[in-house]
Amino acid sequence: MSDPADSTTDGNASYGRKPFKRSRSHFTDRITADARDGWPVEAGRYRLVVSRACPWASRALVSRRLLGLEDSLSLAVADPIQDDRSWRFTLDPDGRDPVLGIRYLHEAYDARETEYPGGVSVPAVVDVPTGKLVTNDYQQITLDLATEWTALHRPGAPDLYPEALRDEIDHVMDGIYRDVNNGVYQAGFALGQQEYEGACRGVFRRLEQVSERLVNRRYLVGDTITEADIRLFTTLVRFDTVYHNHFKCNRWKLAEDPVLWAYARDLYQTPGFGDTVDFDHISRHYYRVHTGINPTGIVPLGPDPARWLTPHHRDELGGRPFGDGTPPGPPPASEVIPSTAHG
Amino acid sequence: MSDPADSTTDGNASYGRKPFKRSRSHFTDRITADARDGWPVEAGRYRLVVSRACPWASRALVSRRLLGLEDSLSLAVADPIQDDRSWRFTLDPDGRDPVLGIRYLHEAYDARETEYPGGVSVPAVVDVPTGKLVTNDYQQITLDLATEWTALHRPGAPDLYPEALRDEIDHVMDGIYRDVNNGVYQAGFALGQQEYEGACRGVFRRLEQVSERLVNRRYLVGDTITEADIRLFTTLVRFDTVYHNHFKCNRWKLAEDPVLWAYARDLYQTPGFGDTVDFDHISRHYYRVHTGINPTGIVPLGPDPARWLTPHHRDELGGRPFGDGTPPGPPPASEVIPSTAHG
Repeated sequence: MSDPADSTTDGNASYGRKPFKRSRSHFTDRITADARDGWPVEAGRYRLVVSRACPWASRALVSRRLLGLEDSLSLAVADPIQDDRSWRFTLDPDGRDPVLGIRYLHEAYDARETEYPGGVSVPAVVDVPTGKLVTNDYQQITLDLATEWTALHRPGAPDLYPEALRDEIDHVMDGIYRDVNNGVYQAGFALGQQEYEGACRGVFRRLEQVSERLVNRRYLVGDTITEADIRLFTTLVRFDTVYHNHFKCNRWKLAEDPVLWAYARDLYQTPGFGDTVDFDHISRHYYRVHTGINPTGIVPLGPDPARWLTPHHRDELGGRPFGDGTPPGPPPASEVIPSTAHG
Repeated sequence: MSDPADSTTDGNASYGRKPFKRSRSHFTDRITADARDGWPVEAGRYRLVVSRACPWASRALVSRRLLGLEDSLSLAVADPIQDDRSWRFTLDPDGRDPVLGIRYLHEAYDARETEYPGGVSVPAVVDVPTGKLVTNDYQQITLDLATEWTALHRPGAPDLYPEALRDEIDHVMDGIYRDVNNGVYQAGFALGQQEYEGACRGVFRRLEQVSERLVNRRYLVGDTITEADIRLFTTLVRFDTVYHNHFKCNRWKLAEDPVLWAYARDLYQTPGFGDTVDFDHISRHYYRVHTGINPTGIVPLGPDPARWLTPHHRDELGGRPFGDGTPPGPPPASEVIPSTAHG
């Protein structure tokens, strides 16, 4: 899905032959205010390539919206169904990304490193002038959007990674990454019963702990939305649609945990979260690409997305979603998703 | 699972090559009070062969318990995992049914009809003296237990198929059979998206209708437990454990419909229902046998069976579960299931 060696979503189904292990990103250059890696923050220079199916890429979609970076960092959305050459721009006219002019994301990888042997993953940030991939570092991209791209943030943008809370945010995200964000994949792509059960138990143990934490607090850390919430959200919003069934994380549905379900709906209904979610892309990607665990390729009808719009009452817990800032406006017309529950 | 031509559970996975169609039973002799087919009702003469995984066989398990036929009609329980020769008695010492002396159920089919080419299905009733299969007619067996075996019923046995209500019972069962009992299989073994969606929508349309019917009435027909409740129960008790995930019937879980979920728990907690259910057999059968839709054979941890024991409050609707009769006593010691939620 996200990182180069994660072949689980590139169609070669190697998850059926070796234990699932998510690799580190290969391209870890950072785009920073001081351009220390040679990549300065600059409006209009870079293109963010995502799949709306991918939870790791969706972090960047949310951050970009919350921070108001839509005009500064343009967006390419790949087809949720990869072919054997991985992510492709078949949703665009003539099957080419209109800005980069390429048909496959791998072309930007190749431009950066000839005959790069790893997988092609999203999120990816591409340098528009040269067509070269800058980074596919899914763990760093959003942190840099929050802390390095500040000069380009919209007025009223929230501080998603406040300095005073970074230790706590990192600690919370660490457990959620291991057991939940990545844990669902370990359960879903497990080769054996024991490996599956360990991962699945880990998912629910952590979710129960997180649910406990959220009983009396609206957000994971502090009283505002932070990076930690974004990272939990992109897994939770997929939970009942794909992880519960397709990845066999079926102790309970998100909709059966009143606290987590209300927390997730609260975020979903917050501008910048739900308006990035495309349930159609999510379902079709997981069920049609992973033929090793769903050989028929049949896509379940799934729970009704309209449930995400039901009242959550989490505002009764207080909290200041955007701190001293404000919510983002609506997404650009070109990025409105027709098939979400919003429609 | 149940009928001869249902090859979906006999390991040859033909459901992957042709549209799913449940055939009629091949052996339709009836065991009756007047022995019209040559098979008189007689205590100790017949053996009921079931898998506790199978919803069709489980109807007979429930009826036998409610009617108190345990001493008159003995029970053989097949291993939930078939091999290429189908249902086998590998749970018994030396892998042989201690009464029939056979290792595979197909031996009783062969004794009845040499080189019978169809599938081997449960429920099956076998004539102990000759070792011959009498019937595998899953639609008729329980009706005959209720109406022909009356001389052997326990004192206080309920009337599960009361004459005055038969038209209504048949009508209700007909829709439930087509859309729910069989509909979940059509969804699960669909070859294409359209076939799946049609079946899945049918399942939930009917369940919504049934849920509506059960808002103010405790049982499906009349104010007592009937055959219609038994047939709905054996599908509902499997719903969240296997049909929701494995067969992709995931619009909602049973546990998310307050009426149906309370109705199903009410029955589960009624003597003769829940004490026949083995969630371990159910899970292992479906997830390990149908490798065409679950190639890894991994068995999900699934929802906690203990939830079936939570209060249902359905007694507030009135109703007389056993009419003028009484509940059955506990199951024979040899038939107590260690792994149920009852444990």
